[in-house]
Formats: sequence, C-alpha cells, structure tokens
Amino acid sequence: MQAHRILGIDPGLQSTGFGLIERHGARLSYIASGCIRTAANEPLPQRLGVVFDSLREIIAKYSPNEAAIEEVFLNKNPWSTLLLGQARGAAIAALTTGGLPVTEYGTMQIKKALVGQGRATKDQVSHMVVRLLQLPAAPQSDAADALACAICHAHAAGLTAALATPEKRRRGGRLVGR
Amino acid sequence: MQAHRILGIDPGLQSTGFGLIERHGARLSYIASGCIRTAANEPLPQRLGVVFDSLREIIAKYSPNEAAIEEVFLNKNPWSTLLLGQARGAAIAALTTGGLPVTEYGTMQIKKALVGQGRATKDQVSHMVVRLLQLPAAPQSDAADALACAICHAHAAGLTAALATPEKRRRGGRLVGR
Repeated sequence: MQAHRILGIDPGLQSTGFGLIERHGARLSYIASGCIRTAANEPLPQRLGVVFDSLREIIAKYSPNEAAIEEVFLNKNPWSTLLLGQARGAAIAALTTGGLPVTEYGTMQIKKALVGQGRATKDQVSHMVVRLLQLPAAPQSDAADALACAICHAHAAGLTAALATPEKRRRGGRLVGR
Repeated sequence: MQAHRILGIDPGLQSTGFGLIERHGARLSYIASGCIRTAANEPLPQRLGVVFDSLREIIAKYSPNEAAIEEVFLNKNPWSTLLLGQARGAAIAALTTGGLPVTEYGTMQIKKALVGQGRATKDQVSHMVVRLLQLPAAPQSDAADALACAICHAHAAGLTAALATPEKRRRGGRLVGR
C-alpha cells in the first residue's frame, strides 16, 4: 500500500505554520512540523520571498504528494487582510509550482474533521492533533494548525477510516475496509 | 553606459499587466508589454500558479534587472481585497525569487511621476506612457498601468532626467546633467 505524504499549511506573513503527515492505509503518522517566520522590519517582497523559498525547501526535503492549506478569515483591519492575502498567495504559488495539488479547507471544516464540531476551541484541536499523531507534546500553535489542516485533508479525501485506530478496525484478523 | 531593464507590474487575479522598458542614460525605450490572464472558472491555486509561472517566463525571456510593482488599493469588498492580495503575493514571490529587487509604488506616486499630479485620470497616464515611450498606439489598460509603474521607477530612482527628451536637454553639444 502506497504512503501519501500530506503537507498542511497555516499561512501568515509573520509566521506560516507547516505540518507533514503520512497516511499509510488507515494509519496516520507524523513526519515534521514547524513555523516559517519572517522579520517584521524586512521589506514585504523579501518576506514573501522567505515564505516561498522556505516552502520550496520543505517540499524538496520531505517530498510530499499533496498539499492542504487553511482558508484565511477576513481581519477587521483590511490592511491586515491584504498582508495575509499576499503571504497566502506566495505560499500557494510555492505549493502549486512545486508540483503539489492544493486543496483549501475552512477553519470550521478543519475543526469538524478533528473534534467533530465546527466551534471547537484551539486547545481541543491541538489535543486531537497530539492524540491522532501520537505526539509526545503539543506543537507550537501555527504548526498544530497546519498539522490539523493536513489531518483534515486525509479525512476529507474520503479517508474517514484514517482517523480510527487500526486496532479498533480489525475484526477476525482482517482489516475492515470501507 | 549600461542599460537598465525595468519590469513593471500591475497585479490582479483576473489580469496582471506587465511592461518592460529599458533606460539607457537619459533615454527610455519600450521593450514589451502585455497581460497575464487567468480563467475565472479555474481553482485559485492554479490561477496563482499561472501568474507565478508566466512572470518567471517573462523574466527568463527578457532578463530585466529590476522590478516595480503597483501597490493595490483596498476594495470595498474585503473578499476582493483578499483575492487581489493573493495574486500580488504570487507575483512578488515570482519577482523576488526570480532574482529581481522589487520596489513598490502607490497609484498617486505613479500618476505624479508621469503626469505631474496624483489625481490624473487613467487616460492622462496612458497618454504619457505612449508619449514617453514613443508608442504607435495606447497599450491595453493593465499593460499601460504596468508600463507607467516601470517609468515611475526609472523616475523615482533619481532619474528624473530620463523623462526629458535628449534633444531638449542638449545645449551647445553637451548633455545637461541634473
């Protein structure tokens, strides 16, 4: 059975979270996660270049097959929306031109996939990320959101089974498929 | 005297205008211009990929040394601002990672550089683009805006002289400097 590597992204200009997971049949496993940070005192073009280049390095290093990115919400301050939009544009360009199919997920959709309801708190989402990926501790906030987005993608791609532990799904020695 | 090639960009998701000019001493000359269009029925990641890839092709084909991009205004509709921001982010990432230093210019700054006042109409700007670059006809709107941005950059980089025709600036057989 072929493994699928999913790169989840939580875009932002100051910090873009990334999280890589692998789905192997019904099992999800953690590969890597972290944050790409840009310096607030650098000009915007350089900061967008950092987001783009860092993502291309991550793609080259971990060779994911698919990408999932969180949709952004509209900030009350339209200038913040514009900055966030530009960071998201640079990130998506890195994913698409890096050869990855990109799927977008709304925050509520991600929360629903992980916790079962769209109004779950950030703590509940982080708790489920730790549990589903069997992590020793909670990753930093943006990385956890990126991992949650990757898990949502594994789930949404008709892979609900991936969220159940393999042990629960074995009956009479054979894996129960959907 | 070394020639400088400037790539001007007027970013947009539906249409990104581009314009290449060359500055050789006090002279500006037209190299190329056009619009990168994306299909409204394509998913956003593909459309951003088209903006990015097309700009990288233009950079590879025409080898500009510098880039200038128009600042975007805030749309009344925040979702439009977000879409425009993403297109601009993909465009800037293409310029920066394509090795070009990128300078941003506000619309009023561009109008002032070309027409002499920040509240000039689009027609006045287009007229000056045609005149300064000695074009046979007005380019399409987004391409004209991109060329205007490139001319503004030539001007703003302490090159006001470039906007005067060499003929007018010659006195007694020598070039009058600033």
